[in-house]
Amino acid sequence: MALVVQKYGGSSVSDAASIKRVAQRIVTTKKAGNEVVVVVSAMGDTTDELLDLAQQVSPLPPGRELDMLLTSGERISMALLAMAIANLGHEARSFTGSQAGVITDSKHGKARIIDVTPGRISEAVRVGQIAIVAGFQGVSQDTKDITTLGRGGSDTTAVALAAALEADVCEIYTDVDGIFTADPRIVAAARQIPRISYEEMMEMAACGAKVLHLRCVEYARRFELPIHVRSSFSQREGTWVTSRRPEADTSTSTSEGSEMEQPIISGVAHDRSEAKVTVVGVPDKVGEAAAIFKILAAAEINIDMIVQNVSAAATGRTDISFTLPATDGPTALTTLKRVQDQIGFESLLFDDQIGKVSLIGAGMRSHPGVTATFFAALADAGVNIEMISTSEIRISVIVGQDEVDAAVSAAHRAFDLDADQVEAVVYGGTGR
Amino acid sequence: MALVVQKYGGSSVSDAASIKRVAQRIVTTKKAGNEVVVVVSAMGDTTDELLDLAQQVSPLPPGRELDMLLTSGERISMALLAMAIANLGHEARSFTGSQAGVITDSKHGKARIIDVTPGRISEAVRVGQIAIVAGFQGVSQDTKDITTLGRGGSDTTAVALAAALEADVCEIYTDVDGIFTADPRIVAAARQIPRISYEEMMEMAACGAKVLHLRCVEYARRFELPIHVRSSFSQREGTWVTSRRPEADTSTSTSEGSEMEQPIISGVAHDRSEAKVTVVGVPDKVGEAAAIFKILAAAEINIDMIVQNVSAAATGRTDISFTLPATDGPTALTTLKRVQDQIGFESLLFDDQIGKVSLIGAGMRSHPGVTATFFAALADAGVNIEMISTSEIRISVIVGQDEVDAAVSAAHRAFDLDADQVEAVVYGGTGR
Repeated sequence: MALVVQKYGGSSVSDAASIKRVAQRIVTTKKAGNEVVVVVSAMGDTTDELLDLAQQVSPLPPGRELDMLLTSGERISMALLAMAIANLGHEARSFTGSQAGVITDSKHGKARIIDVTPGRISEAVRVGQIAIVAGFQGVSQDTKDITTLGRGGSDTTAVALAAALEADVCEIYTDVDGIFTADPRIVAAARQIPRISYEEMMEMAACGAKVLHLRCVEYARRFELPIHVRSSFSQREGTWVTSRRPEADTSTSTSEGSEMEQPIISGVAHDRSEAKVTVVGVPDKVGEAAAIFKILAAAEINIDMIVQNVSAAATGRTDISFTLPATDGPTALTTLKRVQDQIGFESLLFDDQIGKVSLIGAGMRSHPGVTATFFAALADAGVNIEMISTSEIRISVIVGQDEVDAAVSAAHRAFDLDADQVEAVVYGGTGR
Repeated sequence: MALVVQKYGGSSVSDAASIKRVAQRIVTTKKAGNEVVVVVSAMGDTTDELLDLAQQVSPLPPGRELDMLLTSGERISMALLAMAIANLGHEARSFTGSQAGVITDSKHGKARIIDVTPGRISEAVRVGQIAIVAGFQGVSQDTKDITTLGRGGSDTTAVALAAALEADVCEIYTDVDGIFTADPRIVAAARQIPRISYEEMMEMAACGAKVLHLRCVEYARRFELPIHVRSSFSQREGTWVTSRRPEADTSTSTSEGSEMEQPIISGVAHDRSEAKVTVVGVPDKVGEAAAIFKILAAAEINIDMIVQNVSAAATGRTDISFTLPATDGPTALTTLKRVQDQIGFESLLFDDQIGKVSLIGAGMRSHPGVTATFFAALADAGVNIEMISTSEIRISVIVGQDEVDAAVSAAHRAFDLDADQVEAVVYGGTGR
C-alpha cells in the first residue's frame, strides 16, 4: 500500500463537473489500494475574482487581509471536492492549511513554509479517510495569522506535505501531459520528457517552464521525494522528476541502460517575462557595480543576468546591463534614479521587448561543444544574442522578444530533440 | 469610552460599494471614541450561491464539508471590510469564528455556542484595532472542526461576543429602521417601536417577526445585554431591546413616566410558514395523544400549537390538530403514516394554507379584556379563527392564509397601534 499525495490545480477543478471528475480519479487511486492525500487549488478564476473584489474596495489592501480573502478560494474547492468524494461512497475530510499543520513565517502573500506538522492528516489517513488539504495557504508561527505561499504555493504545499508524511510519490496534476522538451505551442515536434532530474527541472523552472515551480522542485530535491507531473484529463504517464535516472528502465528495455543514452540536452525553455535595464556611463571604479546591486537588493528586486561592458579607456566609464522581472522594472528605475548623483552614472535604458532562451541538460557537463552548436544554430536562424549566462547544466541567452520562437525552434532542432528524430532512442522506456 | 459590538447582515455588505459605506460607519463609531468590534455576514447572495454549487456536486453533502464551504462566505466579506477600513486609515483585523474563540458543539449546520473565549479580539481592541469577526461560524470543542450556527447565527455570534467582551451594547444593523408594531408591508400605519423588553421581543421573534432571531434575544436576555436594532442605511435611532423600560425617558419627557403609558400591546406579528396537520379519529384513550407527539419528537419535528377536539360520545374517537413548520410537513405525515395501525387513527389531513397572527404585549398581563377585543376585531373583519394559543404576554390565532393581512390590520387598529392615533402618546420619548 503506497501513500500518494495528489495535487490538482485550478484548471482541474474549474466547475462542478470537473470537481466530480477529479473525485472519480481520487476514488480510483484509493480503490487501487493506496492511501490518498489530496492538495487542491482554488476553482478556475476564483482567485482573480477575489483579487478584483479587493481592488474595488481598496487600491492597496493589507497583506494579512488579502491572505484571509484569498484563502477562501481553496476552502470552497476543497469542501466541494470532499462532498463529491462522499457522494461516491468514500469518506473524505477537508482541512485548511492551518488544520493540516502547514506552519509558515509571517510574510503575507509570499510566506515560506517553516514546518509541517500533519497530525490531523495522518490520523485521517490512518482511519481510512481521504484527506483534502487546501493548497497555497498556511498559518504563521508567530502571529497565528492565515498566510498564503505566493506563486507555486499549491505545488509546494503538496510536496511539503508529501515529504512530512513520507509519501511514496507526489503527483502534480495539470492540464498538459507533463514536462516537454520545449513549449509545444512553439515547437510542434516537442516531446514529453518521461523522466528528468531535480537539477534539470530546477533550471527548467527557473528559465520559464511554467508547469512546475522552482520552489516546489527545490523542496522535493531536499527530501528526495519523487514528483510525477501528469494530466488530469488523461490516464497517461507523465514526467517523473527524481534524483536519478530510472532503475527500472533496463528491465523493460532492450537498450543497454539509460545512462548511455542520456541526451545532452533535456529541453529548451523560454521566458518572455523579463526586461533589461542598462545603466549607462557608470564610473569604472571599484565598488560601483556593487553599490548598484546593493541598492536594488534593498528594494527586493531579483536580478537575473548581468553584463558589464569593457570600460572605454577614453572616458573611464562603462555600461552595466542586467535583466529582471519586467514587473519590477518601474521600481528598479525609480530606485536607481534616486541615486543617480550619488553613483554618478549618465542615464538609464529600459527594454522589455526581450526574451530568454535556455538550453538545459545534465549531459552538457561532459560535452564541451554545446555552446558552439547552440550559437551556430541561433546564427543560422538569424537570431542576435544580446546577453549570455551559463551554469553547469544550462546555457541562457537574451534575444529580441520577436526572435524567441525562432531561437527555441532552432535549438530544439540542433540538439536532435524533435520527436520524429529521437522518439524511441532517448530513453530506454517511458514506464516507471 | 464604550465598547460597541456591531453586526452587519448580508444585505448591508452586498457589494464593494456597500462594504465601503459600512466601513465609513464603523470608522465614524470608532472616531466618536468607542472601541469597536464588528460581526459580519456573508455578502448578499453568497451563501445561496455556495449552496447551489454544493447541490451541483452532491445531492446530500456531509454537514462537516457544507460548513467548511459556507464559512468561506464570511471570510470573504470580513477580509474585504477590513481592507475598506484600512483604506480609510484605521487599523482593522479580521478573525474567523475559530480565531475569535467561538466554541460550539459539533452539530454541523446548527451548532450551539458552548463558550466564547475572545482573547485575540480583546487584544486587538486593546491595541486600538477594529476587530472584524466572521458571523455564523465557530469551531467544535471536541473535533476542532469548523461549524456553522444555522439560522440567526450571525446575530447570535454578535450577542455572544458582546456578552463575553462585556460590551456596552450590541448594535444589529439591518435594512429596516428597527422593530415595528406590525409588518409595514401589511399595515401602512405601523410604527417603529423605540424600546421593547427581551420577553416581548422573544415572543415577537417566535411568532414570525424576522428582524431578530429568538435565539439571539434569548442569549442577550441571559446576559442582560442591550441590543439596538437599526438600519445601516440611515442614522436614525432604531429599536432598543432591553430588560426594562427606559429610565431616561422621564427626564426627557413631560409625561409622568413611561410605565403608566405602557401600551397594552407592543406589536402584532404574523407567520405564514406553518402548516396544520389533523389526525382524524384517534381512539380517545389515555396516552394516545402522548404517543403521537412522542413519535413526532423522535423525528425532530417541532410542534407549535395543539388542539384536541371534544370526543364524540358515539364513536369514542377524537381529532387532534397541530401546527408545525410547513417544511416539516412531509416528514411528519410519513412518520405518522408508519404508525397508523399501531395508534389506530382513521386518517390524516394536511393544510399549508394557514397563517398565524399574534398579539404581543407585556401590558396584557393586567388587562383581562385583551382576548375579547382581539376576537371581536377579527370577527368584525370577517376572519374565522381555527386555533388559539396563549402565553402570559401573547395571544396567537391560526387563520386562513388569505386572511392574515386582514387579521393583522384589524388587530393593529383595535389596539390603537396605528401611527396617526398614538404617535406621541405611547412612550415618553424616542431617545435613549
